[in-house]
Amino acid sequence: MLERIKQSETKKLEAYLRSRSDDLSYEVLSKVQLILSDVRQHGDEAIIRYTKAFDGIELTSLRVSDEALNEWAAAADEAFKEAMTKAKDNIIAFHEAQKQNNYLQQQSLGICLGQRVLPLERVGVYVPGGRAQYPSSVLMNVLPAKIAGVKRIVMITPPSKSGQLDPKIAYAAQLAGVDEVYLAGGAQGIAALAYGSETIPRVDKIVGPGNIYVAAAKKLVYGTVDIDMIAGPSEILVIADEGARADYTAADLLSQAEHDPMASAILVTTSSKLADQVCEELKRQSEQLPKQAIIAESLKAYGKLILCETLADCVEVANVIAPEHLELMVADPWALLGLVRNAGSVFLGYYTCESVGDYWGGTNHVLPTNGTARFASALSVDSFVKRSSFLYYSKEAIEAYGSKIVTLAESENLQAHANAVKVRM
Amino acid sequence: MLERIKQSETKKLEAYLRSRSDDLSYEVLSKVQLILSDVRQHGDEAIIRYTKAFDGIELTSLRVSDEALNEWAAAADEAFKEAMTKAKDNIIAFHEAQKQNNYLQQQSLGICLGQRVLPLERVGVYVPGGRAQYPSSVLMNVLPAKIAGVKRIVMITPPSKSGQLDPKIAYAAQLAGVDEVYLAGGAQGIAALAYGSETIPRVDKIVGPGNIYVAAAKKLVYGTVDIDMIAGPSEILVIADEGARADYTAADLLSQAEHDPMASAILVTTSSKLADQVCEELKRQSEQLPKQAIIAESLKAYGKLILCETLADCVEVANVIAPEHLELMVADPWALLGLVRNAGSVFLGYYTCESVGDYWGGTNHVLPTNGTARFASALSVDSFVKRSSFLYYSKEAIEAYGSKIVTLAESENLQAHANAVKVRM
Repeated sequence: MLERIKQSETKKLEAYLRSRSDDLSYEVLSKVQLILSDVRQHGDEAIIRYTKAFDGIELTSLRVSDEALNEWAAAADEAFKEAMTKAKDNIIAFHEAQKQNNYLQQQSLGICLGQRVLPLERVGVYVPGGRAQYPSSVLMNVLPAKIAGVKRIVMITPPSKSGQLDPKIAYAAQLAGVDEVYLAGGAQGIAALAYGSETIPRVDKIVGPGNIYVAAAKKLVYGTVDIDMIAGPSEILVIADEGARADYTAADLLSQAEHDPMASAILVTTSSKLADQVCEELKRQSEQLPKQAIIAESLKAYGKLILCETLADCVEVANVIAPEHLELMVADPWALLGLVRNAGSVFLGYYTCESVGDYWGGTNHVLPTNGTARFASALSVDSFVKRSSFLYYSKEAIEAYGSKIVTLAESENLQAHANAVKVRM
Repeated sequence: MLERIKQSETKKLEAYLRSRSDDLSYEVLSKVQLILSDVRQHGDEAIIRYTKAFDGIELTSLRVSDEALNEWAAAADEAFKEAMTKAKDNIIAFHEAQKQNNYLQQQSLGICLGQRVLPLERVGVYVPGGRAQYPSSVLMNVLPAKIAGVKRIVMITPPSKSGQLDPKIAYAAQLAGVDEVYLAGGAQGIAALAYGSETIPRVDKIVGPGNIYVAAAKKLVYGTVDIDMIAGPSEILVIADEGARADYTAADLLSQAEHDPMASAILVTTSSKLADQVCEELKRQSEQLPKQAIIAESLKAYGKLILCETLADCVEVANVIAPEHLELMVADPWALLGLVRNAGSVFLGYYTCESVGDYWGGTNHVLPTNGTARFASALSVDSFVKRSSFLYYSKEAIEAYGSKIVTLAESENLQAHANAVKVRM
């Protein structure tokens, strides 16, 4: 079930995986650009018009009332609610530690400088419509913003035929503390968040996944507002030693493969025996899974197996691939962690399957995909703050150091910069 | 010299200022896309070919030797070198405080989770060619990366007719600790950093300003590598009370206006007397400045004056504009700082002109421009790290909490996710 490649082919594999994320076509971008301009100009009316055209739904109001949200949320299953509530606690506990402090430094002559960490004021969370509904993502996107101190968190989601939200999504929105919910999806929804409409407030940052039109719209409004990232196809890389169980290993690879035909599952191991067993297990287990068609496609195209001499070699493979999820299914995972330079999130030991992090443990599941873990990070409290520096120089300080500043400004031929110092000396 | 507008027109002014940054045209983007593909495919040969075509220079080698860099740097002026060396110390002192720690949390049943902060491995710094050379920007871009722990910092800059680097740039590169310097500019240089060529290494992040082709190339390679930001036209907003001196105030407004006809200088004050005096001073001082033509253009289009009732009102104007630079030229600037929500960097009191921060104080001068201070931050040590989470669950922990994880995975119809937990229970 997994194509076997050589360790020396790792860089080729990296390039192949990266080719999964197509550039957005000019056709999509220019279509989306028109929608953005239209909503910017015509506000609510345009949003309602596009919703009718694309979704076949006639909206009379964009805003979801608190009463409606309460009612829908109440319909969610009790076991689900209980698990979500505890998952929320775990996510908060993990993310609280990410809060950064202001700092202030004092120097001679009264000089004082520092940095303040300020929350963004308004954040928009996009929640996709359709059959696949991910309430866990609502927690993952909203809770770090709450902890950062964002005062107004706005959720938008495409309306459904029934006019109602999925009860689980409604519950997650309430549990996470979303302040307002609007029925607007696609590029028109993103436009509303970026520019504001009569009903929907303009925000400072837009987070959350969406289809290709949402992705294109986010890319185009980036700069007017901030965005989280353009999520690409995701991957898991499992490093397993001879002590790893084949059934666990296979199950974890399958949990990634079921997401998407473009998802990638890679096994890197020192044990050729384990590799064989995992391939058998993949076959056996996937036959019992409802998404076996997606899994088959994903494994065929992007399921790979690499045998390495040593565990350190295995980690080097991971560092080149820079996977979104990295499992260290080895006897002593802590001995390897320090060698890992590029991975979105690392799952340690035989018992920590990726699902623990996806739903429960507290780490964020919005992770850098498709090799971007080389330079990007999980969604975090940092994603919802900005840092603003400040500087105070006294009269004495400017007199003491002014001539140096003049030297530097004049070396760049910026006489007005120099003059601002000179007039004070 | 400054057009007077009402406080109630602040939002209109914000929109007007934002309209300064044009979208990159499809023409530029598609031209740049071709260059990127060409360099990706043909490497050094394509870079050399474009350098000949665009700059009329025949390169025999892309790499600047250490000997050449030493020789050019030695030619820099002594007073400049001394001032740069002290500025470097100040920049390091300020940025050291931005280093973030790893963290680790322990819970019952042996559960362990946390976050590691890892430096990017390779960073590319773009330094524009042409007559305007900014050695201070080399320090501002490179030093935070050094402090973050980036091991390989690569500088690229377009070759000049003489074949030499400006001595000040060469000195700044050495002083900051740039590891390698290459002669490559424009979109072809950015392509080399994004994809790598035979000579120039592929990096994880590209920082530094450039012309429109550089900006377009950075936008297009974003995702393959990280980028700092697409710098837009910059601005200063000065809040002044009746105790502020008109000559200081005018000098500071002019220090922004001299940058660029698109730069904006805005005075917000409670004193109509000061406003009149500042306008006179602007006229008087600008007549003595070498860049008076640029200044006249900039002030005419984007020089504004807003009179407010109170200083708190003045700060509200600043919060809407979200200026790159905000000066609080008031008797008690610390009383206002807490009200400031949106500003790239804040300069406190009558003596702290923006130039202190541009060159000397230690805060970074690479700041969010054109209203993006609403959601973006100065370049910092944070810009050169990534955060990677980790999670460990014991056998006992998965047995204790597994059923909750299964509930959540099944609520999203992700059976393979649920199964990865089930096989372990």
